[in-house]
Amino acid sequence: MADTLSHKLIAAHLVGGEMIPGHEIALRMDQALLQDILGTLVMLELDAMGIERVHTNPSVQYIDHTLIQQDNINADAHLFLKSACERLGVWYSGPGNGISHPVHMERFGVPGQSLVGCDSHTTAAGALGMLAIGAGGIEVAMAMAGEPLYLPMPEIIGVHLEGELPDWVSAKDVVLELLRRHGVAGAKNCILEYHGPGLAALDAMDRHVLANMGTEMGATTSVFPSDEVTRDFLRSRGREADWHPLAADPGCRYDRTEHIDLAGLEPLIALPSSPDKVVPVTEAAGQPLYQAYIGSSGNPGYRDFAVVAEIVRGRSVADNVSLDINPSTRQVLAALINEGHLSTLVDAGARLHQPGCNGCIGMGQAPAAGRNSLRTVPRNFPGRSGTREDSVFLCSPETAAASALTGVITDPRSLDMAYPRVQEPARMVVNDSWFVPPLPPERARGVSLLATDNTPPLPVLDALPERIEAPVLLKTGDNVSTDDIMPAGAKVLPLWSNVYASAEHTFEALDPGYVDRARQRGEAGHVIVGGANYGQGSSRENAALVPRLLGLQVVVAKSIARIHWQNLPCFGVLPLTFADPADYDRVGQAQTLVIDDVPGQLREGGTLRATLDGEPLSLEHHLSPRQIEILVSGGVINWLRQRPTPTTQEALS
Amino acid sequence: MADTLSHKLIAAHLVGGEMIPGHEIALRMDQALLQDILGTLVMLELDAMGIERVHTNPSVQYIDHTLIQQDNINADAHLFLKSACERLGVWYSGPGNGISHPVHMERFGVPGQSLVGCDSHTTAAGALGMLAIGAGGIEVAMAMAGEPLYLPMPEIIGVHLEGELPDWVSAKDVVLELLRRHGVAGAKNCILEYHGPGLAALDAMDRHVLANMGTEMGATTSVFPSDEVTRDFLRSRGREADWHPLAADPGCRYDRTEHIDLAGLEPLIALPSSPDKVVPVTEAAGQPLYQAYIGSSGNPGYRDFAVVAEIVRGRSVADNVSLDINPSTRQVLAALINEGHLSTLVDAGARLHQPGCNGCIGMGQAPAAGRNSLRTVPRNFPGRSGTREDSVFLCSPETAAASALTGVITDPRSLDMAYPRVQEPARMVVNDSWFVPPLPPERARGVSLLATDNTPPLPVLDALPERIEAPVLLKTGDNVSTDDIMPAGAKVLPLWSNVYASAEHTFEALDPGYVDRARQRGEAGHVIVGGANYGQGSSRENAALVPRLLGLQVVVAKSIARIHWQNLPCFGVLPLTFADPADYDRVGQAQTLVIDDVPGQLREGGTLRATLDGEPLSLEHHLSPRQIEILVSGGVINWLRQRPTPTTQEALS
Repeated sequence: MADTLSHKLIAAHLVGGEMIPGHEIALRMDQALLQDILGTLVMLELDAMGIERVHTNPSVQYIDHTLIQQDNINADAHLFLKSACERLGVWYSGPGNGISHPVHMERFGVPGQSLVGCDSHTTAAGALGMLAIGAGGIEVAMAMAGEPLYLPMPEIIGVHLEGELPDWVSAKDVVLELLRRHGVAGAKNCILEYHGPGLAALDAMDRHVLANMGTEMGATTSVFPSDEVTRDFLRSRGREADWHPLAADPGCRYDRTEHIDLAGLEPLIALPSSPDKVVPVTEAAGQPLYQAYIGSSGNPGYRDFAVVAEIVRGRSVADNVSLDINPSTRQVLAALINEGHLSTLVDAGARLHQPGCNGCIGMGQAPAAGRNSLRTVPRNFPGRSGTREDSVFLCSPETAAASALTGVITDPRSLDMAYPRVQEPARMVVNDSWFVPPLPPERARGVSLLATDNTPPLPVLDALPERIEAPVLLKTGDNVSTDDIMPAGAKVLPLWSNVYASAEHTFEALDPGYVDRARQRGEAGHVIVGGANYGQGSSRENAALVPRLLGLQVVVAKSIARIHWQNLPCFGVLPLTFADPADYDRVGQAQTLVIDDVPGQLREGGTLRATLDGEPLSLEHHLSPRQIEILVSGGVINWLRQRPTPTTQEALS
Repeated sequence: MADTLSHKLIAAHLVGGEMIPGHEIALRMDQALLQDILGTLVMLELDAMGIERVHTNPSVQYIDHTLIQQDNINADAHLFLKSACERLGVWYSGPGNGISHPVHMERFGVPGQSLVGCDSHTTAAGALGMLAIGAGGIEVAMAMAGEPLYLPMPEIIGVHLEGELPDWVSAKDVVLELLRRHGVAGAKNCILEYHGPGLAALDAMDRHVLANMGTEMGATTSVFPSDEVTRDFLRSRGREADWHPLAADPGCRYDRTEHIDLAGLEPLIALPSSPDKVVPVTEAAGQPLYQAYIGSSGNPGYRDFAVVAEIVRGRSVADNVSLDINPSTRQVLAALINEGHLSTLVDAGARLHQPGCNGCIGMGQAPAAGRNSLRTVPRNFPGRSGTREDSVFLCSPETAAASALTGVITDPRSLDMAYPRVQEPARMVVNDSWFVPPLPPERARGVSLLATDNTPPLPVLDALPERIEAPVLLKTGDNVSTDDIMPAGAKVLPLWSNVYASAEHTFEALDPGYVDRARQRGEAGHVIVGGANYGQGSSRENAALVPRLLGLQVVVAKSIARIHWQNLPCFGVLPLTFADPADYDRVGQAQTLVIDDVPGQLREGGTLRATLDGEPLSLEHHLSPRQIEILVSGGVINWLRQRPTPTTQEALS
C-alpha cells in the first residue's frame, strides 16, 4: 500500500501500540536534544533514575537560553550541565554555539532518524526528514534512559505545495498562511507532512521555518522528504555521507489534505499577541515601530540574515528603530562575516547580539512598553518578550528589514529596489572543536555532578488520592500557554532548575494571587479550570511540576494541548476535559469539585462522574492504561521506582 | 616660564580660582559626555533647573550600560534619554554604537578642549590631549547649563616613559605597573601627565588604556600630548582637521615625577579584588580559568581585539574557558570584521557580544561562583562582575588570550609562537548616520520628555541642620567604593534613574541591614564612618544622593575619594575627615556624633569640634566657601534656586 513518509518514519521506530489515530504508540528514539533551561531538570531526573549512561546517540546538551549571566546562576548551571554531559555520555554545545534546533540540523541531524527533545520546537529537525518530537523533560529523560516515547498516534495532514514564491515572500509567510487558515490548535495531534513541487525552491533552513512553527498550530511534528535540497544542506556542512533519500510513496492517502499555491502568497504578519492573528502586511502598514528583531529558530537560516543585509545595504536604519540581529548559530555567524553581510548590517546601524535564543524567550532586547516590535520569532504570546505590555508582531525577515528602514510597518514590496535573492555558500565553516564530545565510559564514571543550591533534588510526590475534594482556585480563558503558567524571561528562567524558587512566579502575569491561594490550601489540593487549548506553546515540564508542587490535583479544560497534557500525569496531575464543553460556563472560582474513587473511575472507562458544588458534572479523560498507572503512582519517577521489571512490552501490555 | 601641558590646559579653561594645589578652581567646560545609567539623573536635574538648551558643545548622550533590556525599563529609559536629547540640544549615540569613552574619542574628541562627563572614566579622553574630567551628575548638569566645573587644583605628576615595550607586554601592563607602585589612592588630587620618548610607540587607544585607568589611582585626570600619533588617529577617522599639536614646554617642572622604562616591564596581573594587587603573571600562572573577558574601556582599541585574534588564530579555546569578546565600539567592530579578525575569533570558539560596557559593569557575562575570570577591564572590585563570590583578575589582552588557549592563567611569553604585532587600518569605517544630531532650537522646543514611573522627579532636600546629633549606623574599612555604596549589575542598574527604588539596594553586599537601620532613624539622620579612600571608583552621584535620601547627614573618614567628596555636599551631606586618623579606631557602630553650630563652624575654618558619645573629637573639612553654602542650602539644586544672580564670579568671591 502506498504510504505517507510520516507512516514510514513511525513504522520504522514503532516498538508498541497500533498506528490508529488517537491510540497510544511507543516509539524508539535514536537521538535526544536538551536545551539548558529544561535540561537541568532532565539531568536531575536521569540522576534520580540512577542512569549511568544514556542510550540515545547522539544526545546533545545545548546552552542557548541562559546566555545573559547577570549573576553566577547561569554560569553555575552551565558547569552543572557540562559535568552531567561528561558523566552520562552526552555531547555539550556550549554558550556561543547558537540555538539548539538549527545547530542540531547542521551538526547532528540525520534523515530518517528519530529525535526527542525537551523543547517544543524540536520538531524543526523534521526539515531534514527526521521524526522529531518535543516532549516534557521527564519523557525525554525516559527516552534517553532507553525507554520508548509514548504519544497518541497522530493524524497525517498532507500539505501540498506548488508554484514558486513571489519576490519579497518567503518561508515565514507560508507558515503564517497556515496559521491564518487553521489557528493555534489547527494541527493538534497531527503531523504536517509537506510534499509537492513547491518544495524544491525551499532550502533546508526554509523548511526549518515551517517545521519549527508547526508547533504553533499544535502539531505533533512536521515532516519533509529528504531530497536533493537536503543533500545540498548536508554536503555544504561536510556530511553528505549522512544523507539518504526519503519520500512518501506516490499516491499515498493523507488523513487530511491542505493545498498552498506559493505563487499566490503575499507578505503576512501576525498581530499582537497570538501567532494566528494573521493579516496581510498591508493591513498593518504605517504603524510606528520601536524594534525589528531578526533571528531565532523561527527564521534561523543564513538566507534570513543575508536578505536583511542586502535590503539595508548602503542605507541606514531609521532613528526610532532598534534593528536587532541575533545570529542563530556560530556557523551562520561565520558565514555572514565571511560573505560580507555582517559588515553591511553593522554599517547600516544594526545591533549585533550573541548567537542564541535571546529575545525570542525574553532574554534581553525587551521592547519599550506599548511600542511595536516586529520579530521573525515563532511566538508572540503576551509578555514573552520580557515587556509585560508588549506589542509583538511576527513576520518575515524581509518585512522586518523593510520596516526597519522606513520606521513604520512596511510591506517590503513597496521598497524601491529589486528583490535580493541570496544563496547560501557552497561550503559552510565546519569546526568540530566547537563541540565537546562525550567522555568514554571509563572516564565518565569518575565525574561527579557539579550541583549547586539552584539545582536541588526533585521533590518526592504523593500518590493520587482515592477521593478528590478541592476548590477551583483559578479559571482561565482559551489558549493559556505554558508561558502563562510558568513565565520565561531573564528573571525567572535562571530559576527553572529550582522548582522551589520558580514556584513564586507561577501564573505571575495572569493571576498574581494564585500562588498565595494555592499555598493557603497547601497539600489539601486545588483545581484549575481552563478553556480551549490549555497549556499550548513551549514544552516546559515545570508548567506541570511546579503547580503540582503548589497543590494542583486536577486540570479540567475544554481541551488541553498535547505536550502539556502528557506532562501533567507524569507529575501526578489529572488532566480532564468537560464531557459537555458548555459546562465550562457553569464553573466559578472557589466552587468545589468532588471526584470519588478516582483510580477506579479512571480504570473503568473514559468518563468520570464528579460534582461541582454538589451538582453532577461529567468529565472525560483520554489517558492510556500506562498513563493511568503513572498518575495513580503520583508520577513517572514513583512509577519507575515501583515497577519490578520495567520493560517496554510490559508497559504496553 | 616652562609650563606643563596640564597647566596650559587648565589655564586655557580657568574662569576662577588660583592654580595652587588644593585650592578650588573653576573651569569652563567645552564638551559634555553622559552615559545612560547616570544620564537619566542629569537630564532630570537639567529639567529641575529649567534649562532650555545646553551650553556645552558637543554634549553627547551614550547608551552603553543598559543594553540587556530584560524588561521594558531599559528601553523606556532609552526613549526618555532620546527625548531629552532632542529637547535640550544633545547628540544621541544609541544602543549598539559602543562604550562612551572610545566612541567619544573616535567621533568627538578634540585636542586642547575640556570635557566633563558623569562617568569616572571620562578621563580617558586625555589620551587625545583633552582636559577630561569625571564628575558627579549634578556637576555635569551645572557645566552643561553653562556654569563652571569646580575642583581642587591638582598636583601634576610627570610620568616619563622611555624605551620600547618588549614582545607580549602592552599598555595595560604599563598602567598595572603604576598601580603596583602607587595603589588605588596613589594619584588622588593629581593629574598624571605622560611624556617622554616611550610615548611614540603607544597609539591613541593604548594611551586611552592609561588615561582610563588613571582613575583607578584616584587621579583627577591623565593628560597626553597631542602629537603625530594623535594626528594619525584623527586622520584615520576622517578628522585630521580637528588636530593641532600640544605638548609641555621643554624643561617644565612637575610637582612629582615618575619614571618607567618600558623595556623593563613584564606581563602583570591584578589579583582579586582590587586593581592594585598587582604581581607578575608568572606568580599567578597555572591557576584554572573559567573566563577570559576581552573589551571594555580598559582595553578598547582595535589592537586589543586584533592581537587576541592573532593569538588564537587556527587554535581552539580550551573547553573550560568562556572567551568573551566585547567589541568596544561599532567602528572597532566594523574594522575587526573587515580585517578578518572577527572570523578568526568566532572560528576559535570565542563568544561574541554586542558592543557596550556589558560585563565590565556587571551587565551579563557574570562568572561562575568562585571561578577565576581574567578580564581586560579597569576594575575588579568584589562583586562588580555580577557574581557575589567572584574572583576577577585584571590583565592585558595578550595574557587573557594566552590563558584562554591553555585553560589556566598563563604568561603569554610562554606560548610557542612569535608575538603578533597588529596595525590599525589606515582608514576606519566612518558613518555619521550612527549618531542622531541635536535638533535645531525651534524644533527642540516642541519636544516633551518621555518620562516614566522609573524616572520620577528628584526629591527636595532639607537644609543642613544647625545641630547634628546622630548615631554611626555603619563603619567601613578602607577603600570602600561607590560600587559598594550603590551596586551596579543587571538587577540594580535599571533602577538608578529612580532614587526611591534604588534605595533598597544601598550597601547591599557590604551590610544588608543598613537600609533598615537607616529607615528606622528616618529624618532624624545618621552618620557613616569610613576608612581611607572612602567612595573610590565610579563617579555615580546616587552613591551620595540615595544615602542622603535614607537620612545620611555626615560621612567621617580617614580620607574621601575626590569625586565622591564633591558629590556629597552637592546633595547636602557633610564630608569630614579625622584630624587624627587614629581616632578612626575609637569609633564604634551606634555611637553618637554631635556637632553644634554646624554652619558657623564650617564658615569659621577647617576644623570642627564634635563629640563622640560625649568625648571630644576633632574633625576637618576641606570645603570651599562655595561648597559650604551649597551644603548649608541642602545641596546644589536648593542653592541654585536660592541664588539671586548666579554668576561664576560671585560663586568664587
